Amino acid sequence: MSFGGEKINPSYEIIKRIKDNIGGAEIIKLEVPVVFHKSAETVIKKINEINPDYVIMLGQAGGRHEISIERVAINIDDASIPDNENNRPIDEAIDKEGLPAYFSTLPVKRIIRVLREMGIPASLSNSAGTYVCNHLMYSILNYIYSNKLNIKAGFIHIPYIMEQVVNKPGTPSMTLEALIQGIETAIKAAMRDSDDIKVSEGKIC
Amino acid sequence: MSFGGEKINPSYEIIKRIKDNIGGAEIIKLEVPVVFHKSAETVIKKINEINPDYVIMLGQAGGRHEISIERVAINIDDASIPDNENNRPIDEAIDKEGLPAYFSTLPVKRIIRVLREMGIPASLSNSAGTYVCNHLMYSILNYIYSNKLNIKAGFIHIPYIMEQVVNKPGTPSMTLEALIQGIETAIKAAMRDSDDIKVSEGKIC
Amino acid sequence: MSFGGEKINPSYEIIKRIKDNIGGAEIIKLEVPVVFHKSAETVIKKINEINPDYVIMLGQAGGRHEISIERVAINIDDASIPDNENNRPIDEAIDKEGLPAYFSTLPVKRIIRVLREMGIPASLSNSAGTYVCNHLMYSILNYIYSNKLNIKAGFIHIPYIMEQVVNKPGTPSMTLEALIQGIETAIKAAMRDSDDIKVSEGKIC
Amino acid sequence: MSFGGEKINPSYEIIKRIKDNIGGAEIIKLEVPVVFHKSAETVIKKINEINPDYVIMLGQAGGRHEISIERVAINIDDASIPDNENNRPIDEAIDKEGLPAYFSTLPVKRIIRVLREMGIPASLSNSAGTYVCNHLMYSILNYIYSNKLNIKAGFIHIPYIMEQVVNKPGTPSMTLEALIQGIETAIKAAMRDSDDIKVSEGKIC
Repeated sequence: MSFGGEKINPSYEIIKRIKDNIGGAEIIKLEVPVVFHKSAETVIKKINEINPDYVIMLGQAGGRHEISIERVAINIDDASIPDNENNRPIDEAIDKEGLPAYFSTLPVKRIIRVLREMGIPASLSNSAGTYVCNHLMYSILNYIYSNKLNIKAGFIHIPYIMEQVVNKPGTPSMTLEALIQGIETAIKAAMRDSDDIKVSEGKIC
Repeated sequence: MSFGGEKINPSYEIIKRIKDNIGGAEIIKLEVPVVFHKSAETVIKKINEINPDYVIMLGQAGGRHEISIERVAINIDDASIPDNENNRPIDEAIDKEGLPAYFSTLPVKRIIRVLREMGIPASLSNSAGTYVCNHLMYSILNYIYSNKLNIKAGFIHIPYIMEQVVNKPGTPSMTLEALIQGIETAIKAAMRDSDDIKVSEGKIC
Repeated sequence: MSFGGEKINPSYEIIKRIKDNIGGAEIIKLEVPVVFHKSAETVIKKINEINPDYVIMLGQAGGRHEISIERVAINIDDASIPDNENNRPIDEAIDKEGLPAYFSTLPVKRIIRVLREMGIPASLSNSAGTYVCNHLMYSILNYIYSNKLNIKAGFIHIPYIMEQVVNKPGTPSMTLEALIQGIETAIKAAMRDSDDIKVSEGKIC
Repeated sequence: MSFGGEKINPSYEIIKRIKDNIGGAEIIKLEVPVVFHKSAETVIKKINEINPDYVIMLGQAGGRHEISIERVAINIDDASIPDNENNRPIDEAIDKEGLPAYFSTLPVKRIIRVLREMGIPASLSNSAGTYVCNHLMYSILNYIYSNKLNIKAGFIHIPYIMEQVVNKPGTPSMTLEALIQGIETAIKAAMRDSDDIKVSEGKIC
């Protein structure tokens, strides 16, 4: 069982359209408010309710070219714009007792390889930013770690959907169809039993 | 009647898949070699054979984000790499007697507007480069002008197809489906009777 | 004798600082209003007054990375924003009787090579846009051609000056010092007696 | 007392040229091999020898536009190319006992503000990559933390020096002079007594 929390409407358009059962796993979908602490509380409440095996979070990162799999979330909120309830934390720890960062517990390299094999552009990201996406990813991994839950979790960023960039020449996008196929493929790849593969997606700097 | 000459295989994949009849017009397709003078000769031979109303040329411009409609072709060959028959002209006039440039005689602004209305990213380009694409566009417009033919002609550049960028993170692309729909839409928009619309797609520099 | 017309204050900062005598040539400087037809009239009036050997025009192209030497100007005004006197021509010929385009009569390739030899990034541009810069370049080349004047002319675009991008992360720039050295070097290279060199700076598309 | 470790020759050109005394502090300079563990050992040996107050590390990040101040280093080596001694670790923890990440203990926001006030483009980076730069930054912060040393440390990435991009059109750079002034300014800003300022340099994602 797994579910996808997501951040804003464009990515929810994808969530709504993905299958309810992927590779034998039941998919529970959840829309999440773009609000710093409330986003995490919403997902944690659902975790306690349904006890999932995987938590795959989704958000839109306008400007990126591919589906990008986040490697790590860091313990900081630094908001350049207010969230949807007008919070704008600057340089605040998400959890003062929490570790400085958490690595995704999804097999990020395997997800990327499987996506590419399916003809879908994908890449690894070493930063989920310092806004609500990173906050949510950090908070969920922190909750799972602190409570010793047996849940794998991670965050996937999607680029703009093609319709969103029609009047923005020079902006990268993917089609809704390719993104739906991509997220379904990523979910399937995430759930394979074996460990992550060891191939470099490293960035020099 | 119109036909689309094209330059390399990826754009020929599109040509092959577009309908043979669009908006009542018969579509004649033609594959064109990526060779400086031969590309134009191939298209001119076909023009004389079928006497088309429109010549819509297609080529791939890897690195661009949208379908881009070329505004102008200039009278110069300046090849940074050899063509497919190993010609590499540098700073040679395409036609020593020809005008310095020709503007597309397609309604470029209307094509862009109709594409965007269909949800397909499109933009105007003020340079088709100085390689075979510009050579072909210049040569055909020059031939039509010099022979006072009643044919409208222009060039459309397409970005990479999604499958081409799977292993090139950070490279923009569009899906084959979106490009097929885009080119069919562009052909339909090109053939409307009215003049071009007067909206700015200007670039400051 | 030569002079540099320019377009906006940042590039005039460079003009003011370049030497008044370069390689034995007297440099006459001229500030030009960013107004469609008035820009050209200002330069033409000065041409008639001083009868220069070279007219090297300068403008800023924010977003470019290097000093870029324009190859060609096209016979069209297409303004996405109004000029400084609120003119906003869209798809109007600059000169209804003029040629479709004019190529720079400066040795563009040699200028680029000499700049690079001096350690200054430079590139060739195949489009000066469709705003006042292109208008001015076209108009001056058109005037020289129509009146059979023995004057070489061309246009150079400069990137942002470093100070202009301090609050715009991700925007390319060069320092004022590098640009001054670059423009002085370009003027010197432009005035060498020999023909342009034949090396490719071509763009595929 | 502080010193700047650096990674490759271009950034060592800067180090060599910065003053030996900045704002009353003695500057000890150190060249560091681009080798995974050896880079950190070299710096740790020097730390033990001179007991500095600050360790400001420097490396080149070709492709970035500004001086960028790193916020965080993560506990992972993922090398897409071998280092200078042919090591190519993939997905290995830098220190299996270490924390997942360390935040820079330099006042990163203040450094950025002071640089901008001096007219020097600067930005905050949330990822130092997963190669030797991140390895060195992580290792030094880990060593200082584990040994409870009273040393502030952080990493600064510089873009290409202008001379390096002469033949790479479209690549951002800064001049050596601007970079020297920038690093001296950054060192001065780092050493001010007060806490970091609280302004957002956050990235949404």
